[in-house]
Amino acid sequence: MDCFYCEEGEKRKSLMIEICKLKYSTVYLNRNQTHKGRLVVKFSLHKTEFFQLTEEERDGFFAEMALASKAVFELYHPAKLNYATYGDTVPHVHMHVVPKYENSPDWGVPFSDEPKTLLSEEEYTEMISCIAKKISQLRNDVCR
Amino acid sequence: MDCFYCEEGEKRKSLMIEICKLKYSTVYLNRNQTHKGRLVVKFSLHKTEFFQLTEEERDGFFAEMALASKAVFELYHPAKLNYATYGDTVPHVHMHVVPKYENSPDWGVPFSDEPKTLLSEEEYTEMISCIAKKISQLRNDVCR
Repeated sequence: MDCFYCEEGEKRKSLMIEICKLKYSTVYLNRNQTHKGRLVVKFSLHKTEFFQLTEEERDGFFAEMALASKAVFELYHPAKLNYATYGDTVPHVHMHVVPKYENSPDWGVPFSDEPKTLLSEEEYTEMISCIAKKISQLRNDVCR
Repeated sequence: MDCFYCEEGEKRKSLMIEICKLKYSTVYLNRNQTHKGRLVVKFSLHKTEFFQLTEEERDGFFAEMALASKAVFELYHPAKLNYATYGDTVPHVHMHVVPKYENSPDWGVPFSDEPKTLLSEEEYTEMISCIAKKISQLRNDVCR
Protein backbone atom coordinates (compact mmCIF):
# COMPACT_ATOMS: atom_id res chain seq x y z
CA MET A 1 0.00 0.00 0.00
CA ASP A 2 1.35 3.40 -0.94
CA CYS A 3 0.84 5.06 2.46
CA PHE A 4 3.82 6.33 4.41
CA TYR A 5 1.87 6.11 7.67
CA CYS A 6 1.41 2.37 7.11
CA GLU A 7 4.92 1.81 5.73
CA GLU A 8 6.65 3.45 8.71
CA GLY A 9 9.73 3.93 6.52
CA GLU A 10 12.16 6.72 5.66
CA LYS A 11 9.50 9.12 4.38
CA ARG A 12 7.58 9.07 7.66
CA LYS A 13 10.80 9.27 9.67
CA SER A 14 12.00 12.27 7.68
CA LEU A 15 8.88 14.20 8.76
CA MET A 16 8.25 13.12 12.35
CA ILE A 17 9.61 11.08 15.26
CA GLU A 18 7.56 8.62 17.30
CA ILE A 19 6.77 9.72 20.84
CA CYS A 20 4.55 6.85 21.95
CA LYS A 21 2.00 4.29 20.84
CA LEU A 22 -1.39 4.44 22.53
CA LYS A 23 -4.31 2.02 22.13
CA TYR A 24 -5.90 3.64 19.07
CA SER A 25 -3.14 5.91 17.84
CA THR A 26 0.55 6.72 17.58
CA VAL A 27 1.76 10.17 18.64
CA TYR A 28 4.65 11.74 16.71
CA LEU A 29 6.67 14.91 17.16
CA ASN A 30 6.89 16.92 13.94
CA ARG A 31 10.47 17.60 12.92
CA ASN A 32 9.26 21.04 11.85
CA GLN A 33 9.00 22.85 15.19
CA THR A 34 8.16 26.36 13.97
CA HIS A 35 5.11 25.89 16.21
CA LYS A 36 6.69 24.56 19.39
CA GLY A 37 5.16 21.27 20.46
CA ARG A 38 3.63 20.44 17.06
CA LEU A 39 2.44 16.81 16.91
CA VAL A 40 0.80 14.33 14.60
CA VAL A 41 -1.67 11.83 16.07
CA LYS A 42 -2.13 8.91 13.68
CA PHE A 43 -5.00 6.43 13.83
CA SER A 44 -3.63 2.90 14.14
CA LEU A 45 -5.52 1.36 11.22
CA HIS A 46 -5.66 2.48 7.59
CA LYS A 47 -9.04 4.21 7.36
CA THR A 48 -9.50 7.47 5.50
CA GLU A 49 -12.50 9.35 6.94
CA PHE A 50 -13.62 9.73 10.55
CA PHE A 51 -17.07 8.35 9.75
CA GLN A 52 -15.45 5.04 8.74
CA LEU A 53 -14.23 4.46 12.30
CA THR A 54 -16.39 2.36 14.62
CA GLU A 55 -17.85 4.19 17.60
CA GLU A 56 -15.22 2.64 19.87
CA GLU A 57 -12.39 3.62 17.50
CA ARG A 58 -13.69 7.18 17.09
CA ASP A 59 -14.17 7.73 20.83
CA GLY A 60 -10.75 6.21 21.52
CA PHE A 61 -8.90 8.15 18.84
CA PHE A 62 -10.28 11.53 19.89
CA ALA A 63 -9.73 10.77 23.58
CA GLU A 64 -6.06 10.10 22.80
CA MET A 65 -5.83 13.16 20.54
CA ALA A 66 -7.25 15.28 23.39
CA LEU A 67 -4.78 13.68 25.83
CA ALA A 68 -1.77 14.43 23.62
CA SER A 69 -3.05 17.98 23.03
CA LYS A 70 -3.43 18.56 26.75
CA ALA A 71 0.13 17.35 27.33
CA VAL A 72 1.48 19.88 24.81
CA PHE A 73 -0.73 22.64 26.21
CA GLU A 74 0.48 22.06 29.75
CA LEU A 75 4.13 21.82 28.74
CA TYR A 76 4.44 24.76 26.33
CA HIS A 77 1.48 27.06 27.23
CA PRO A 78 0.34 28.09 23.74
CA ALA A 79 -2.44 30.67 23.45
CA LYS A 80 -4.45 28.22 21.30
CA LEU A 81 -4.12 24.82 19.72
CA ASN A 82 -5.01 24.26 16.08
CA TYR A 83 -6.11 20.82 14.85
CA ALA A 84 -6.27 19.71 11.24
CA THR A 85 -6.80 16.62 9.14
CA TYR A 86 -6.11 17.17 5.43
CA GLY A 87 -4.77 14.05 3.75
CA ASP A 88 -5.89 14.60 0.13
CA THR A 89 -2.83 12.69 -1.05
CA VAL A 90 -2.06 10.77 2.19
CA PRO A 91 -5.58 9.89 3.33
CA HIS A 92 -4.66 7.72 6.38
CA VAL A 93 -6.60 9.24 9.32
CA HIS A 94 -4.28 11.52 11.29
CA MET A 95 -4.53 14.88 12.96
CA HIS A 96 -2.00 17.70 13.14
CA VAL A 97 -1.97 19.33 16.57
CA VAL A 98 -0.35 22.74 16.16
CA PRO A 99 0.28 25.05 19.13
CA LYS A 100 -0.16 28.73 18.28
CA TYR A 101 1.46 31.56 20.20
CA GLU A 102 0.52 35.26 20.03
CA ASN A 103 2.99 37.46 18.14
CA SER A 104 4.48 34.28 16.61
CA PRO A 105 4.33 32.63 13.17
CA ASP A 106 0.84 32.23 11.68
CA TRP A 107 -1.02 33.70 14.66
CA GLY A 108 -4.60 34.38 13.52
CA VAL A 109 -4.24 32.51 10.23
CA PRO A 110 -4.06 28.80 9.34
CA PHE A 111 -0.64 27.34 10.18
CA SER A 112 1.83 26.92 7.36
CA ASP A 113 4.62 24.38 6.87
CA GLU A 114 7.06 27.07 5.73
CA PRO A 115 9.51 28.30 6.82
CA LYS A 116 10.58 25.20 8.73
CA THR A 117 12.42 25.22 12.06
CA LEU A 118 14.55 22.11 12.56
CA LEU A 119 16.14 21.19 15.90
CA SER A 120 19.16 19.08 16.82
CA GLU A 121 18.62 15.38 17.55
CA GLU A 122 19.35 16.13 21.22
CA GLU A 123 16.62 18.76 21.31
CA TYR A 124 14.11 16.38 19.70
CA THR A 125 15.02 13.66 22.19
CA GLU A 126 14.52 16.04 25.10
CA MET A 127 11.08 17.17 23.85
CA ILE A 128 9.98 13.59 23.15
CA SER A 129 10.96 12.54 26.64
CA CYS A 130 9.02 15.44 28.20
CA ILE A 131 5.89 14.88 26.10
CA ALA A 132 5.89 11.09 26.62
CA LYS A 133 6.24 11.60 30.38
CA LYS A 134 3.42 14.16 30.46
CA ILE A 135 1.10 11.93 28.39
CA SER A 136 1.81 9.03 30.72
CA GLN A 137 1.17 11.20 33.77
CA LEU A 138 -2.14 12.56 32.41
CA ARG A 139 -3.24 9.06 31.42
CA ASN A 140 -2.61 7.79 34.91
CA ASP A 141 -4.62 10.70 36.31
CA VAL A 142 -7.58 9.72 34.11
CA CYS A 143 -7.33 6.03 35.02
CA ARG A 144 -7.16 6.65 38.76
CA MET B 1 -18.86 37.66 25.65
CA ASP B 2 -17.11 38.63 22.42
CA CYS B 3 -17.74 35.36 20.54
CA PHE B 4 -19.82 35.36 17.38
CA TYR B 5 -20.63 31.68 17.83
CA CYS B 6 -22.27 32.46 21.19
CA GLU B 7 -23.86 35.73 20.04
CA GLU B 8 -25.57 34.11 17.02
CA GLY B 9 -25.86 37.59 15.47
CA GLU B 10 -25.17 39.22 12.12
CA LYS B 11 -21.47 38.27 12.02
CA ARG B 12 -22.23 34.55 12.32
CA LYS B 13 -25.11 34.84 9.86
CA SER B 14 -22.92 36.62 7.31
CA LEU B 15 -20.57 33.60 7.26
CA MET B 16 -22.85 30.57 7.57
CA ILE B 17 -26.48 29.42 7.70
CA GLU B 18 -27.87 27.00 10.29
CA ILE B 19 -28.73 23.56 8.96
CA CYS B 20 -29.76 21.84 12.20
CA LYS B 21 -29.16 21.65 15.92
CA LEU B 22 -28.04 18.29 17.27
CA LYS B 23 -27.53 17.28 20.92
CA TYR B 24 -23.94 18.51 21.30
CA SER B 25 -23.51 20.72 18.26
CA THR B 26 -25.06 22.96 15.63
CA VAL B 27 -24.32 22.27 11.96
CA TYR B 28 -23.99 25.23 9.59
CA LEU B 29 -23.55 25.54 5.84
CA ASN B 30 -20.69 27.89 4.94
CA ARG B 31 -21.81 30.69 2.65
CA ASN B 32 -18.49 30.24 0.87
CA GLN B 33 -19.13 27.15 -1.25
CA THR B 34 -15.87 27.04 -3.25
CA HIS B 35 -15.63 23.54 -1.73
CA LYS B 36 -19.11 22.18 -2.38
CA GLY B 37 -20.76 20.99 0.83
CA ARG B 38 -18.47 22.91 3.18
CA LEU B 39 -19.83 22.93 6.75
CA VAL B 40 -19.04 24.20 10.21
CA VAL B 41 -19.89 22.00 13.20
CA LYS B 42 -20.00 24.11 16.37
CA PHE B 43 -19.87 22.71 19.90
CA SER B 44 -22.95 23.87 21.84
CA LEU B 45 -21.11 25.33 24.84
CA HIS B 46 -18.34 27.92 24.94
CA LYS B 47 -15.22 25.82 25.53
CA THR B 48 -11.99 26.47 23.66
CA GLU B 49 -9.92 23.25 23.51
CA PHE B 50 -11.07 19.67 22.93
CA PHE B 51 -9.43 18.50 26.15
CA GLN B 52 -11.76 20.81 28.11
CA LEU B 53 -14.81 18.81 27.00
CA THR B 54 -16.09 16.06 29.29
CA GLU B 55 -15.83 12.54 27.91
CA GLU B 56 -19.54 12.56 27.09
CA GLU B 57 -19.28 15.93 25.33
CA ARG B 58 -16.19 14.89 23.35
CA ASP B 59 -17.68 11.57 22.24
CA GLY B 60 -20.96 13.29 21.37
CA PHE B 61 -19.38 16.18 19.47
CA PHE B 62 -17.18 13.97 17.30
CA ALA B 63 -20.01 11.49 16.67
CA GLU B 64 -22.11 14.38 15.34
CA MET B 65 -19.17 15.79 13.37
CA ALA B 66 -18.69 12.35 11.76
CA LEU B 67 -22.44 12.14 11.03
CA ALA B 68 -22.53 15.55 9.32
CA SER B 69 -19.36 14.65 7.38
CA LYS B 70 -20.87 11.40 6.18
CA ALA B 71 -23.99 13.25 5.01
CA VAL B 72 -21.88 15.60 2.89
CA PHE B 73 -19.75 12.74 1.59
CA GLU B 74 -22.78 10.74 0.48
CA LEU B 75 -24.48 13.74 -1.12
CA TYR B 76 -21.56 15.33 -3.01
CA HIS B 77 -19.00 12.51 -3.40
CA PRO B 78 -15.77 14.42 -2.69
CA ALA B 79 -12.48 12.56 -3.11
CA LYS B 80 -11.53 13.48 0.49
CA LEU B 81 -12.85 15.51 3.39
CA ASN B 82 -10.63 17.95 5.25
CA TYR B 83 -11.32 18.85 8.88
CA ALA B 84 -9.88 21.81 10.75
CA THR B 85 -10.22 23.66 14.01
CA TYR B 86 -8.21 26.89 14.13
CA GLY B 87 -9.89 29.57 16.24
CA ASP B 88 -6.89 31.65 17.36
CA THR B 89 -9.12 34.71 17.44
CA VAL B 90 -12.51 32.91 17.73
CA PRO B 91 -11.64 30.09 20.10
CA HIS B 92 -15.15 28.59 20.57
CA VAL B 93 -14.76 24.87 19.71
CA HIS B 94 -15.89 24.30 16.12
CA MET B 95 -14.70 22.27 13.18
CA HIS B 96 -14.60 23.14 9.49
CA VAL B 97 -15.58 20.18 7.31
CA VAL B 98 -14.28 20.89 3.81
CA PRO B 99 -14.95 18.54 0.89
CA LYS B 100 -12.05 18.34 -1.55
CA TYR B 101 -12.38 17.29 -5.18
CA GLU B 102 -9.60 16.26 -7.53
CA ASN B 103 -8.66 18.85 -10.18
CA SER B 104 -10.56 21.46 -8.12
CA PRO B 105 -9.52 24.37 -5.86
CA ASP B 106 -6.88 23.56 -3.22
CA TRP B 107 -6.58 19.85 -4.11
CA GLY B 108 -3.46 18.52 -2.37
CA VAL B 109 -2.94 21.66 -0.26
CA PRO B 110 -4.74 23.08 2.80
CA PHE B 111 -8.06 24.68 1.84
CA SER B 112 -8.18 28.43 1.48
CA ASP B 113 -11.03 30.90 2.06
CA GLU B 114 -10.23 32.77 -1.15
CA PRO B 115 -11.54 33.17 -3.76
CA LYS B 116 -15.06 32.78 -2.37
CA THR B 117 -17.99 31.25 -4.25
CA LEU B 118 -21.35 32.62 -3.10
CA LEU B 119 -24.67 31.07 -4.10
CA SER B 120 -28.20 32.46 -4.37
CA GLU B 121 -30.47 32.18 -1.31
CA GLU B 122 -32.51 29.59 -3.24
CA GLU B 123 -29.41 27.46 -3.80
CA TYR B 124 -28.44 27.66 -0.12
CA THR B 125 -31.98 26.68 0.89
CA GLU B 126 -31.91 23.69 -1.43
CA MET B 127 -28.53 22.49 -0.09
CA ILE B 128 -29.61 22.97 3.53
CA SER B 129 -32.75 20.98 2.94
CA CYS B 130 -30.78 18.10 1.34
CA ILE B 131 -28.12 18.02 4.06
CA ALA B 132 -30.65 18.23 6.91
CA LYS B 133 -32.65 15.40 5.36
CA LYS B 134 -29.54 13.24 4.91
CA ILE B 135 -28.34 13.88 8.49
CA SER B 136 -31.77 12.94 9.80
CA GLN B 137 -31.83 9.78 7.66
CA LEU B 138 -28.32 8.69 8.79
CA ARG B 139 -29.19 9.40 12.42
CA ASN B 140 -32.28 7.22 12.19
CA ASP B 141 -30.17 4.44 10.65
CA VAL B 142 -27.79 4.59 13.64
CA CYS B 143 -30.62 4.61 16.19
CA ARG B 144 -32.44 1.65 14.69
